[in-house]
Amino acid sequence: MGAHIIDNRMVGGSFGTTEMRQVWDEKNRFQKHLDVEAALAYAEGEVGLIPEKAAKAIEAHADADHYDLDAIAARVAELQHTLMPTIEALQHQSGDYGEFVHYGATTQDIVDTGTVLQLKEAFTIVERDTKAVALLLRGLAEKYRNTLMTGRTHGVQALPITFGFKCAIWLDELLRHLDRLKEIKARVLTGNISGAVGTYASFDGKGPEIEKLALEKLDLNVPNICWQSSRDRFSEYASVIALISGTLGKIGNEFYLLMHTEIDEIEEPFTAGKVGSSTMPHKRNPSSCEGLASLTQPVLHAAALIHQSLTMEHERDAMSWRAEWIALPELNIYLSAQLQLAQGILKGLTVRKDNMLKNLKLQHGLILSEKVMFELGKEVGKQTAHHLVYTCAMTAFEQERPFEDVLWEEAEIRSRFSKEEIDHWLDPAHYLGSTQTAINRVLQRADTVLGRPVQQ
Amino acid sequence: MGAHIIDNRMVGGSFGTTEMRQVWDEKNRFQKHLDVEAALAYAEGEVGLIPEKAAKAIEAHADADHYDLDAIAARVAELQHTLMPTIEALQHQSGDYGEFVHYGATTQDIVDTGTVLQLKEAFTIVERDTKAVALLLRGLAEKYRNTLMTGRTHGVQALPITFGFKCAIWLDELLRHLDRLKEIKARVLTGNISGAVGTYASFDGKGPEIEKLALEKLDLNVPNICWQSSRDRFSEYASVIALISGTLGKIGNEFYLLMHTEIDEIEEPFTAGKVGSSTMPHKRNPSSCEGLASLTQPVLHAAALIHQSLTMEHERDAMSWRAEWIALPELNIYLSAQLQLAQGILKGLTVRKDNMLKNLKLQHGLILSEKVMFELGKEVGKQTAHHLVYTCAMTAFEQERPFEDVLWEEAEIRSRFSKEEIDHWLDPAHYLGSTQTAINRVLQRADTVLGRPVQQ
Amino acid sequence: MGAHIIDNRMVGGSFGTTEMRQVWDEKNRFQKHLDVEAALAYAEGEVGLIPEKAAKAIEAHADADHYDLDAIAARVAELQHTLMPTIEALQHQSGDYGEFVHYGATTQDIVDTGTVLQLKEAFTIVERDTKAVALLLRGLAEKYRNTLMTGRTHGVQALPITFGFKCAIWLDELLRHLDRLKEIKARVLTGNISGAVGTYASFDGKGPEIEKLALEKLDLNVPNICWQSSRDRFSEYASVIALISGTLGKIGNEFYLLMHTEIDEIEEPFTAGKVGSSTMPHKRNPSSCEGLASLTQPVLHAAALIHQSLTMEHERDAMSWRAEWIALPELNIYLSAQLQLAQGILKGLTVRKDNMLKNLKLQHGLILSEKVMFELGKEVGKQTAHHLVYTCAMTAFEQERPFEDVLWEEAEIRSRFSKEEIDHWLDPAHYLGSTQTAINRVLQRADTVLGRPVQQ
Amino acid sequence: MGAHIIDNRMVGGSFGTTEMRQVWDEKNRFQKHLDVEAALAYAEGEVGLIPEKAAKAIEAHADADHYDLDAIAARVAELQHTLMPTIEALQHQSGDYGEFVHYGATTQDIVDTGTVLQLKEAFTIVERDTKAVALLLRGLAEKYRNTLMTGRTHGVQALPITFGFKCAIWLDELLRHLDRLKEIKARVLTGNISGAVGTYASFDGKGPEIEKLALEKLDLNVPNICWQSSRDRFSEYASVIALISGTLGKIGNEFYLLMHTEIDEIEEPFTAGKVGSSTMPHKRNPSSCEGLASLTQPVLHAAALIHQSLTMEHERDAMSWRAEWIALPELNIYLSAQLQLAQGILKGLTVRKDNMLKNLKLQHGLILSEKVMFELGKEVGKQTAHHLVYTCAMTAFEQERPFEDVLWEEAEIRSRFSKEEIDHWLDPAHYLGSTQTAINRVLQRADTVLGRPVQQ
Repeated sequence: MGAHIIDNRMVGGSFGTTEMRQVWDEKNRFQKHLDVEAALAYAEGEVGLIPEKAAKAIEAHADADHYDLDAIAARVAELQHTLMPTIEALQHQSGDYGEFVHYGATTQDIVDTGTVLQLKEAFTIVERDTKAVALLLRGLAEKYRNTLMTGRTHGVQALPITFGFKCAIWLDELLRHLDRLKEIKARVLTGNISGAVGTYASFDGKGPEIEKLALEKLDLNVPNICWQSSRDRFSEYASVIALISGTLGKIGNEFYLLMHTEIDEIEEPFTAGKVGSSTMPHKRNPSSCEGLASLTQPVLHAAALIHQSLTMEHERDAMSWRAEWIALPELNIYLSAQLQLAQGILKGLTVRKDNMLKNLKLQHGLILSEKVMFELGKEVGKQTAHHLVYTCAMTAFEQERPFEDVLWEEAEIRSRFSKEEIDHWLDPAHYLGSTQTAINRVLQRADTVLGRPVQQ
Repeated sequence: MGAHIIDNRMVGGSFGTTEMRQVWDEKNRFQKHLDVEAALAYAEGEVGLIPEKAAKAIEAHADADHYDLDAIAARVAELQHTLMPTIEALQHQSGDYGEFVHYGATTQDIVDTGTVLQLKEAFTIVERDTKAVALLLRGLAEKYRNTLMTGRTHGVQALPITFGFKCAIWLDELLRHLDRLKEIKARVLTGNISGAVGTYASFDGKGPEIEKLALEKLDLNVPNICWQSSRDRFSEYASVIALISGTLGKIGNEFYLLMHTEIDEIEEPFTAGKVGSSTMPHKRNPSSCEGLASLTQPVLHAAALIHQSLTMEHERDAMSWRAEWIALPELNIYLSAQLQLAQGILKGLTVRKDNMLKNLKLQHGLILSEKVMFELGKEVGKQTAHHLVYTCAMTAFEQERPFEDVLWEEAEIRSRFSKEEIDHWLDPAHYLGSTQTAINRVLQRADTVLGRPVQQ
Repeated sequence: MGAHIIDNRMVGGSFGTTEMRQVWDEKNRFQKHLDVEAALAYAEGEVGLIPEKAAKAIEAHADADHYDLDAIAARVAELQHTLMPTIEALQHQSGDYGEFVHYGATTQDIVDTGTVLQLKEAFTIVERDTKAVALLLRGLAEKYRNTLMTGRTHGVQALPITFGFKCAIWLDELLRHLDRLKEIKARVLTGNISGAVGTYASFDGKGPEIEKLALEKLDLNVPNICWQSSRDRFSEYASVIALISGTLGKIGNEFYLLMHTEIDEIEEPFTAGKVGSSTMPHKRNPSSCEGLASLTQPVLHAAALIHQSLTMEHERDAMSWRAEWIALPELNIYLSAQLQLAQGILKGLTVRKDNMLKNLKLQHGLILSEKVMFELGKEVGKQTAHHLVYTCAMTAFEQERPFEDVLWEEAEIRSRFSKEEIDHWLDPAHYLGSTQTAINRVLQRADTVLGRPVQQ
Repeated sequence: MGAHIIDNRMVGGSFGTTEMRQVWDEKNRFQKHLDVEAALAYAEGEVGLIPEKAAKAIEAHADADHYDLDAIAARVAELQHTLMPTIEALQHQSGDYGEFVHYGATTQDIVDTGTVLQLKEAFTIVERDTKAVALLLRGLAEKYRNTLMTGRTHGVQALPITFGFKCAIWLDELLRHLDRLKEIKARVLTGNISGAVGTYASFDGKGPEIEKLALEKLDLNVPNICWQSSRDRFSEYASVIALISGTLGKIGNEFYLLMHTEIDEIEEPFTAGKVGSSTMPHKRNPSSCEGLASLTQPVLHAAALIHQSLTMEHERDAMSWRAEWIALPELNIYLSAQLQLAQGILKGLTVRKDNMLKNLKLQHGLILSEKVMFELGKEVGKQTAHHLVYTCAMTAFEQERPFEDVLWEEAEIRSRFSKEEIDHWLDPAHYLGSTQTAINRVLQRADTVLGRPVQQ
């Protein structure tokens, strides 16, 4: 049973996908340690540092299924060393060739490179699902490119936008995240096998060659120099995860806001049987959106924690790892839940166009005060216009009267414009500016990054 | 198997004690939910809101051992609600009386009060172990009150202290932490049962009475008003945990520093069989100290995360809980490991008095320049003395000569003092000031807080 | 001119009050250093370590107005030491008695105790203004104790509450904060004068007495033992500030939410002339509320930063101070702005009772589904009732029909209750439970903590 | 006078360079606002939205030197709007053409684009100084590539390295940071001018063209779509700054460690006149290194703060800006101090080769236990060898005898090897592995990134 919520059977699924939790599961972690030992043996066999037969034997036994993790765990407690028992077990299984297990390597070589192997699997998932979310947003941006809704600044109605425009802004963010993932990939997925202090001293002069062969075997990149005391790659990865999580959390929060009973412009997918409240039968809560929104803070704090590992002392200390062992799984796992939630929400989203329109008209035209100001400004100058329109707007607001009526009482306006002109200005559909141009630019870029979507 | 390091069988033990992990284990969490439902039923039976027989029936079935958590977990996924399946299961077991389970309560009542019950168990452990660490430090402060060592500022030798003095400073900190725990206890251990928005509306006018009876049954305090949207108690608790963790991490870091090969003034307990390095046979690493030091950052970041829950929207949202579900177990669990590590280290600490003395003499008296300055100052004025002594010190430093010799070449000194006087000044044991007074004050306060220790 | 926003003349006022910025202004900082030197001289004069005349001379020159801070700043750059130039200047002004300035003290003694003196001024302001905010909330809780509004959970309408109830919850939080301030006060306001490594070695055996006299002169508490390497008091203070800031930010955020055009239940004070938007004349932005809400994150991060100082190395290092020099002023200053903003908003708050009622009726009774369920449950059992009412609620929601009508079509209801009964259940004023009891408990506690308010 | 330490005249210089503080000074901030207004007017003139003469007039008055910032600050307080007074002042100076100032723009357009202009100046400084630090490290890596010193893991002596190797690892990190800066540059330095909700509605259909012309004029990139609610670029920049700061802080901390009196392997530049301690004449503190090390935490926390802005509500809120206004200057300013300190330290570093060698020999050969194990392993198998050598190492450690002597008593060794062989193994210079290869790889990459250094 789990003490951490991620491993809680009842609710752990809300904090991470099964797929991503398996990447960081202790069995996979153990497997990765075996993989690195096997690759090391392979490389050392190739260059003749150990017998080729030993290499083959070690590789043959690098399968986590054949080990008793409970026994190894017991031995960890005994030796007070986290890797030695794994080495011992592999040695034992490798029989006479056991001597050649972990030859010349240091614990850190295995553990760090193993972590990067886990990270590689996580990276693939994150990239795949970020693309999937981007594609869904692309779909929404196009589908709702003309769906009028209220643009709000400071929580207050500001000017009309379209729902597709809102989605296009998020899409543009996600495209940047995909660029970022691409840029950091080679740097982040770099292994390290260079011995106790990174000098390859224990590899009889063949260290660099062994490292290269082993890492290539593991499909990882080769560093210029040992990075045991340089943890920037993990922090860099965490930073990009934090950015993705930030966007997803923002989307969740935005939908949560738009689901307020009084706004009610969208609704997250509601499956029959889903229970909103244990006591209020009428409740339909934005629970997926809240889930989506809520996981950004844990990701941000895990990212901040991992940055503390940037400071290492001397050639290595054992203080920073722990932060990594905690935070790397966390941020990947929380993000995986966000990526899944986002896909579910975006796929099944209900867009209440009628309510969007209703809200847009809530202030009886007040929302288009800027338009009136600009039109009036062409005649009387912008400053004068701002002053006049401001006064009318405040009157309409305080007396709760239609803006149109108040404007029509204003001599400066009445003397210059017709009622039809004012009507035209106050129609939100006429004040969308170059929304479509901006959406188009984003869609084009999306097609470049994501490929042209097939007909859905 | 665990995806989070806390639940990792191999190394989870380094991140939390078994005892504390069990407090936060999902089974105990489930048990606490049953406990709250049972206490609620009891209270509602007492005031006649539900039949007394129903209350008895519900109380009788509130035992986690009789439930299939896997089945409940499956149902959570189905209903997308974290508590309903628990309620259902309890209803089912309570037979005809099942109707009266969770009567008038909201999910949050059960989950929050359940969390406080877990916190109560954690609190007891933290208080007990903080006292235990304090007692060990008390012992060291007394035992080594006269053991001379180098006081260092900026990492550089400054003036003599004693090892007991160093321990007394830490002890004084821990005594403050114990005061803090005492001050916050009643506030933190407060339950909450007041219905969906905290108005007790669903309790037929008997809400406050029911809440009082139920919470007293659970041995928790009763709030003035609903705190569903007021999470300050959790943040407050987290803050005190952070302070304790800070002190423990500092001790770990200090011992790690003092174990540098070149300093080598203490050694953490080294048990036969313990493996330092998988490749370097000679290594005796300060691994317990590093463990102790390394867990402060995770605690600080968990505490920072939980502070994000201070902002709740409206009468309640589902965004802050998640941070609490993540961070509350984390900070208690990490601290439990620190408290255990600290006890182990302090109990088995090797203090290398000889090395302490050796280091104190490393600079051939330079460390007592302040003393010389004050004595000389009485004759020639402090400013002049500072100037003269500074010059001698820099000469001794750059020429790597005994300070005494350089001083003796200085006419202002030679003309005024004897070599014996200088010798006396340069003896560190003569320059400990009122160290003993300060240690005494701390020991006295320790006895007040911890009780007078029995002969060890 | 300022590079940090706090010192920006144009907008710095939004980030801190003038009063609090002056507490942390460099001139006051300098004055506090002089104050500590003067108190030290006084104490040393009393015990006879320095001539009483010297003490008097030094005290006489401890006035920041008589110093040229630019010259001192230039000298700091030269000596690369932050305090020496202050000591020099004071020595210079003290003439022949200058020798006795800073006698036996270390830089840290002066700087730390000086900081605590600044903190004392800040503490007074924080306590005063937190009380003022609490008193305003007390007023609102009482005034609006019967003002019906919608209680919302998950951003969705849940059950009726009153506006006074909402305020009472915040008030209860603030009362806890006042308790916390009280509890930590003596601990936090503790000075430290004990020499280079805290042993009082340089005070000729009179250290503890000197420290006591000097700190009493400064109206600060006396520590048991040197706390140069124990910074927990600053972190503790920061934690309480973080809690207060959390409550204030939550209030700001809540009002910002309630000012959404579609909700529009309250309005922050709007002074004539205030400009909402540089381009949209109709905008009335919740700018004070946003200001109030926005400063919590900077406070939380400053508090997290200061916690990093908990780890000090050896008897002292120069790495943690910097975090304190940055974060202590920050968190006090940001909080001062929040306390001021909160007072302004609470004093001038417009409560739109009509809109509150309008929103409460928005769902045509759906919000009282729980009440219906309980009443029906008394007849048919709670489970059956939950099922029936849930079905009716979902129908009403999806068909956008009055809940009452849908209920009336349900045979189980129609056969048992009259239309008048249903009407009565669906009246929010009848479903406020024990709101008044809870409010009363908080008001009573407020009177204990704040004193009984005079007639306003 | 400054309330924030950055603006403190006495010590602000330790928290940021004058150059970088000027970038973020309020006058430069004001100038940037004028620059954006001028570029906007220019673009609007070009496309004919406003008269070209108006554009020229506005551009002509966009000089901060001609404005009274105190008067503007007073007006900010009055209008409770941070930008309007600037617009007013520019309008006033532009006379009749004032009408056309800020035409169609929203406050956010000006403030955000202005911030990016400041960021551009900061970016240039950061890039320049990061390169400078990298070049200095390149020099040290080459100069000391053969300078033997102790490699330490867990604070304990592990195996020999060279000082140049240590520097090369840091250099490799810095080269990665330079890559990162390059990758993010175009994304980060992107402006935004698109009106109140980003739709360009107020630009009469010419918005995208105007934005493009204006941003090109300012030498900034053009976004695909409005980023008022997408703050990821700032967080991304902060993340890279955090990484650079992490490396610099690590270097500072490392030198601080190596300056411990007992280790004493390097010394930071010590200028005559510099005061170490106000009371201890002999102290030579690593104050620059401590400064360097200490500023990483403030940068990390400022970076964490800015990540909180990732969540924006609706089309924009006023809550995230504040975090940016606080954190962006902070992290640039603190980093500028670190970059300057690092250059100073690296330029004037004293490397105590003798002490490095002395420390390497401190354990009488124990540090080469791994080498002995490998050589012995070739004869008796690695496991047996590890066991034998471990036993000898523990004996040598506990009895404090030369490792060589203990080894020589071991029959398995004595029977197989000569004393000369053992001597050879225990010579650290013979156990540096492929250190040179790794250094070469880094130097080559440095030359690619930094250009081949001219003879120094």
